Amino acid sequence: MTEQQRDIPTDPSALAAATAAAMWARDQTAQALGMQVVKVDAGQATLAMTVRSDMVNGHRICHGGMIFTLADTAFAYACNSYNQNTVASAAQIDFIAPAREGDTLEAEAVERSQGGRTGVYDVCVHTTDGQLIALFRGKSARIGGQVIDGRTEA
Amino acid sequence: MTEQQRDIPTDPSALAAATAAAMWARDQTAQALGMQVVKVDAGQATLAMTVRSDMVNGHRICHGGMIFTLADTAFAYACNSYNQNTVASAAQIDFIAPAREGDTLEAEAVERSQGGRTGVYDVCVHTTDGQLIALFRGKSARIGGQVIDGRTEA
Amino acid sequence: MTEQQRDIPTDPSALAAATAAAMWARDQTAQALGMQVVKVDAGQATLAMTVRSDMVNGHRICHGGMIFTLADTAFAYACNSYNQNTVASAAQIDFIAPAREGDTLEAEAVERSQGGRTGVYDVCVHTTDGQLIALFRGKSARIGGQVIDGRTEA
Amino acid sequence: MTEQQRDIPTDPSALAAATAAAMWARDQTAQALGMQVVKVDAGQATLAMTVRSDMVNGHRICHGGMIFTLADTAFAYACNSYNQNTVASAAQIDFIAPAREGDTLEAEAVERSQGGRTGVYDVCVHTTDGQLIALFRGKSARIGGQVIDGRTEA
Repeated sequence: MTEQQRDIPTDPSALAAATAAAMWARDQTAQALGMQVVKVDAGQATLAMTVRSDMVNGHRICHGGMIFTLADTAFAYACNSYNQNTVASAAQIDFIAPAREGDTLEAEAVERSQGGRTGVYDVCVHTTDGQLIALFRGKSARIGGQVIDGRTEA
Repeated sequence: MTEQQRDIPTDPSALAAATAAAMWARDQTAQALGMQVVKVDAGQATLAMTVRSDMVNGHRICHGGMIFTLADTAFAYACNSYNQNTVASAAQIDFIAPAREGDTLEAEAVERSQGGRTGVYDVCVHTTDGQLIALFRGKSARIGGQVIDGRTEA
Repeated sequence: MTEQQRDIPTDPSALAAATAAAMWARDQTAQALGMQVVKVDAGQATLAMTVRSDMVNGHRICHGGMIFTLADTAFAYACNSYNQNTVASAAQIDFIAPAREGDTLEAEAVERSQGGRTGVYDVCVHTTDGQLIALFRGKSARIGGQVIDGRTEA
Repeated sequence: MTEQQRDIPTDPSALAAATAAAMWARDQTAQALGMQVVKVDAGQATLAMTVRSDMVNGHRICHGGMIFTLADTAFAYACNSYNQNTVASAAQIDFIAPAREGDTLEAEAVERSQGGRTGVYDVCVHTTDGQLIALFRGKSARIGGQVIDGRTEA
């Protein structure tokens, strides 16, 4: 057993937190967009992001791609929370109301199904004032290997 | 008739180009992500983006949100090409293969249906080497007003 | 005020029940497939269906179209429960596990968003043993007119 | 080599036809709904169905579930055309225009992507008069075994 493997938590909540920390360190997109990991646990994650001036589109509202990216990131932290490398195989989003520059958005991801190598996760995106912005559903696929990846460390 | 209204083209291809130029000037997201408008015409648009180091995720591949944002932007330029303000009401994406830092991605949007206020557009995202990366389908909704917005100018 | 309008309930639960009864009388598909309306209320509905021998496909499992039809019907009863004519504009389904001949399936539809003319509804399909079969999400659009249609009666 | 294995065609078009025949013999749903296999080839299939009185819903138009079932069946014949057992893992449908009792609908399925165990197929549903009714996209998953199933025969 390596030094790092001994450090991988067995408690599900602690494992989710350790996995999120490992992902965050490499997640250049989430960092560049100023996201924050609000909460993570087994099969769930909440992330926040404030809509900046470089996140608006040609209609002067928050770009749908930025809302999707926040939701997709919450989905990623939720479906990787078991420390098994997992990617999105598909996702679907319904845009409910526009978000505007300055709004702080929260994306709450919850697990709806997880079995074998695939899972389904729902993400609700709302403003901190409680206005529903978008509903996202993602399909996940496990691709082998661990997120924390104790096996590659000596 | 205002000065600007007189400048709105009647030829569909020229109208699509003028609409894209008006959107681009306000599209802070597309500019910040280094996108390029490769081609626009009535009901279609092709945009390109090179995957930068700040577009990778915790698995060290291009963030799905960045691929979606490129596809969603091509969709936006295609469905707004008639100079009628149009937003995404929903979108769905299938991720086929990972993209990597340094890859240049192209998103080609084509119209599958447009009637009344709603439309359906398909976007194919591939590398410039021809590797299929993702298939995107968006549902559009017209919200009133013009993109070039001649009516608000004196 | 007509005879029938006086009979349209104002209580939301009673209105949902009356709307479901009016839909059911015309719903030849639900009747032909042997569905049952288990429960209806404002913005929600549960329907049941037993998988018959004429509902299996070329792999000898319940045809995905039959599972979708059950979910879509529960969605229809939920989004029409306010007695405003509403149709599906889009729907998405994830198939989780196969269903087999003889299984009784229940589809529970709940409202996730309803505003203006459009809504989003989630439907969970499971066996009566609690096995999750499919997750469905539908987008609804109000098209004008009432389901019970008091205005067309003298 | 068994008797039946010798009978499995190697030509892709002939293999698709033989696979469709094997599926059809077991496909109780497609038979009960009066579908017809119009055309099959490698990665593609066209099926037809006439909307009967038992296929309408509470709004007196063709039930969305029946349109989905036709599209899903065309998808099934297309993605199984290589004689590898394949099921739908997910599907999405946009309803464009209502269909009515007596309309004959055609669903044309084409392959957009097929790699490893998963594929993406697009299905266009239209009336024989050329009216677009629905756009369907399905995600397929290979589950092992053959459709014609030569290996189980002595």
